[in-house]
Amino acid sequence: MAEANTRRRARGGGGAARRAERTAVRIETAKYIERNIPNFEVLNEEALEIIETNAETILAEVGVNFVDNPGALQRWKDAGADVDGERVRIPRGLARELIKSAPSEFTQHARNPEKSVVIGGRNLVLAPVYGPPFVRDAHGGRRYATMDDFNKFVKLAYMSKWLHHSGGTVCEPTDVPVNKRHLDMLMAHMTLSDKPFMGSVTDPSRAQDSVEMCEILFGKEFVQENTVMTSLTNINSPMTFDDVMMGALEVYAKNNQACIISPFIVGGAMAPVSVAGTLTQVLAEVLAGVAYSQIIRPGAPAIFGAFVSSIDMNSGAPTFGTPEASMVTYGAGQLARRLNLPFRSAGSFCGSKLPDAQAAYETANSLNMGLMSGVNFMLHSCGWLEGGLVADFEKFVMDADQLGVLHGLAKGVAYDENAQAMDAIREVGPGGHYLGCAHTQANFKEAFWKSEMLDYKPFETWEDEGGRDTRQLATARVEHLLANYQQPQLDPAILAALNEYVAEKKASMPDAFT
Amino acid sequence: MAEANTRRRARGGGGAARRAERTAVRIETAKYIERNIPNFEVLNEEALEIIETNAETILAEVGVNFVDNPGALQRWKDAGADVDGERVRIPRGLARELIKSAPSEFTQHARNPEKSVVIGGRNLVLAPVYGPPFVRDAHGGRRYATMDDFNKFVKLAYMSKWLHHSGGTVCEPTDVPVNKRHLDMLMAHMTLSDKPFMGSVTDPSRAQDSVEMCEILFGKEFVQENTVMTSLTNINSPMTFDDVMMGALEVYAKNNQACIISPFIVGGAMAPVSVAGTLTQVLAEVLAGVAYSQIIRPGAPAIFGAFVSSIDMNSGAPTFGTPEASMVTYGAGQLARRLNLPFRSAGSFCGSKLPDAQAAYETANSLNMGLMSGVNFMLHSCGWLEGGLVADFEKFVMDADQLGVLHGLAKGVAYDENAQAMDAIREVGPGGHYLGCAHTQANFKEAFWKSEMLDYKPFETWEDEGGRDTRQLATARVEHLLANYQQPQLDPAILAALNEYVAEKKASMPDAFT
Repeated sequence: MAEANTRRRARGGGGAARRAERTAVRIETAKYIERNIPNFEVLNEEALEIIETNAETILAEVGVNFVDNPGALQRWKDAGADVDGERVRIPRGLARELIKSAPSEFTQHARNPEKSVVIGGRNLVLAPVYGPPFVRDAHGGRRYATMDDFNKFVKLAYMSKWLHHSGGTVCEPTDVPVNKRHLDMLMAHMTLSDKPFMGSVTDPSRAQDSVEMCEILFGKEFVQENTVMTSLTNINSPMTFDDVMMGALEVYAKNNQACIISPFIVGGAMAPVSVAGTLTQVLAEVLAGVAYSQIIRPGAPAIFGAFVSSIDMNSGAPTFGTPEASMVTYGAGQLARRLNLPFRSAGSFCGSKLPDAQAAYETANSLNMGLMSGVNFMLHSCGWLEGGLVADFEKFVMDADQLGVLHGLAKGVAYDENAQAMDAIREVGPGGHYLGCAHTQANFKEAFWKSEMLDYKPFETWEDEGGRDTRQLATARVEHLLANYQQPQLDPAILAALNEYVAEKKASMPDAFT
Repeated sequence: MAEANTRRRARGGGGAARRAERTAVRIETAKYIERNIPNFEVLNEEALEIIETNAETILAEVGVNFVDNPGALQRWKDAGADVDGERVRIPRGLARELIKSAPSEFTQHARNPEKSVVIGGRNLVLAPVYGPPFVRDAHGGRRYATMDDFNKFVKLAYMSKWLHHSGGTVCEPTDVPVNKRHLDMLMAHMTLSDKPFMGSVTDPSRAQDSVEMCEILFGKEFVQENTVMTSLTNINSPMTFDDVMMGALEVYAKNNQACIISPFIVGGAMAPVSVAGTLTQVLAEVLAGVAYSQIIRPGAPAIFGAFVSSIDMNSGAPTFGTPEASMVTYGAGQLARRLNLPFRSAGSFCGSKLPDAQAAYETANSLNMGLMSGVNFMLHSCGWLEGGLVADFEKFVMDADQLGVLHGLAKGVAYDENAQAMDAIREVGPGGHYLGCAHTQANFKEAFWKSEMLDYKPFETWEDEGGRDTRQLATARVEHLLANYQQPQLDPAILAALNEYVAEKKASMPDAFT
């Protein structure tokens, strides 16, 4: 790659660039969450062992399919699996043995080193919604997503204090040809934000393009030695690994880039209707997928994923924020920790068509559950609407604000002398009040999490100001943020190299819309 | 009481009453929640012991005030406390010793024995909002609450599957004189519902009226031997026990009726700004209050209460669904369990002025936290709006529906052979789907919790039906429920006796509006 080393070179140069960097608006981004609270665990040892034994039985006796992928079948054969057509049966213990080389945590580097994240351990990294073909806002209603929408979401994510990650396909830019979309999406993440991001998985060649663009952005050597993308490779549940997703995984693993290996479960459709049965299948699928990533390159970062929803048996619609989905997620977290793998699940899930109370109930149920279940990487943590069909602008900033609650909860309870506040209790005494006491004065600024957009005003003030509901407050916040967006600095040489790469790639093939 | 034994007598008579009972519409009420999941615990042993030691220090060195209540001061003196003016200092260990007689759980009887509840242990009993002077609905907006509103809320609570309890002052009927309100409110709970309820605490004489009306409803002996009311006696935090609340507590405890002894905390105003400091004060207050109830009558049921909100330090407004309030509640649950006392906290708390997304986020945060923190009695579990100033009709049914989620979560995870679903996984295999398989057919009806009011429809259907948001769906549900309400049967002789009692009481004193 000719462009590979432009970064280091450019960094040494240009007083103008340095001056511009100094005057840029500084956007506040919270550090990824380091939990100081326990995980919530719903399965006892007996249940965990039954599920683990059953998952091995599934792998050994039922097996999984690797579809249209002769290379994968050969690799599995070489690794000791029993391959019959596209069916791969994995002897008991083999997958578990293979995954031992996967790291329990890893650093995903951002181009701004202050925004690099550590995924795994007791950490939680928050990333926005992924995949919706539609967008919605109060002004424009529901419509197909465009590249302009995509750029706006990347800007909003960049400006959101509680988002640690820029995500990937925050919406599908349907106005850009399918075979060129990934280039524009990556350009947006690389140039409009300086947070970490995800690569393309819609074709192995696009995964390769993602790697090459990262080599321009980070330097070729840096990419080979470090993880700079975390990408989403779904399993086609039940127990099917298709060639597109596995092809992307092969590219990423080979390049030491992280993959989320994620069963896609609508309970009762892609998995059994029971929680324990779903967990068994999820575990079998993840074991097979992560093992495969380790066959490709031992030590490549892999995340235990679980996208989980329940189903409305009347309509067949997926349902969110439900107790059964929560139980699967809590259980999956336990299984992931027993495998020493980072865990991806939960999000701002809801089935509602609008960013209304239903959306918020379902989302809050899912977000709280995600924190408590020990999730390490939460995709979809803001902006998700209508079962994932819609990325909603108002809901994006509403959810992003609520992510502050998770940061607060994760801090746990301090009990040092200052936190004990005995002096305050003695000072105030029975019948007094604490508003003016010394302890309150010394601590009030950090004492309470505060929303940046919800309404805390007296009724009369709120009414005088128009009696706005949450969505109206969010509309104003979206406008305010976008109006005040300032692009983070990027070395002009790198920018030029990226533009050149994208232009060449686009010119090299005709547009395709399927 | 002349009316006391009418109940037994009437039960023996009247074929007409029996026939009416047989043909009455049967309203489904879920059994109170019996948790099959762990409690979430945020404090370690060291933190718990520090807080417990500090609380004893507060009681011994700072003390609490029992205001305008010479009888209480004398009782405390007799019990071994150091009384100085209205200040009661309680030697280390005394309160803890006194509360040993309080039961760890108790049955609150409903007039319909199927709806009696057991408060304490691993149970969770859900009761509606308490106290708002205003009501709101989409049609009428925000307005002072009336007795007509009160009756409607009692009817909605009666018809709500997930509510186990009819509550108390579901709203303040401001069109009824203050000194007679409690009579009409109790009549509503006793005649429009058959679920358990709360008594009046606004004056000791009204608590006495509550007991006497219960003697009519349940029989005098039954009331003396059983608990038929759980009433809310707030502590005037910090560390002040006023004569009105304590007067009511004295009446209830003497009659073996349950009291929630509940610090009322807006963090930073009525308690320190820190979680650990707040917990220390809460524990000291509850120890003093429960100990006092046991001085009145050893063995009288008492609940460890904690109403907790945080504060917006800019406006002074209480804030809800915040991480700090959650941490206090989790910690208070741990402290209550270490005292072997039932625990009351949490609710459908929010600061929003409308039943919008803010209301739902904050409420869902609070409800989830309430379940996880081991709450045994959740007052305010539906209908709370605007920091408790408003009882909202739409939010009442929205929240009441979400209480189904708590029931589902509490069930935990089954892992028997049917739940393991290995036959289903074998039957379906890689690439299949579970919708039609035998296991799904056998289990789908019970597999997933389903909302009775949220929208799960395809976008197009939803749009054709008017594109309604949650509040609009709730308006329709309120109307539907009230239109289909059928009063539960009550022995006509008891009804007549209650009416007579209320008429006599009302005639015995002039109206008072303060």
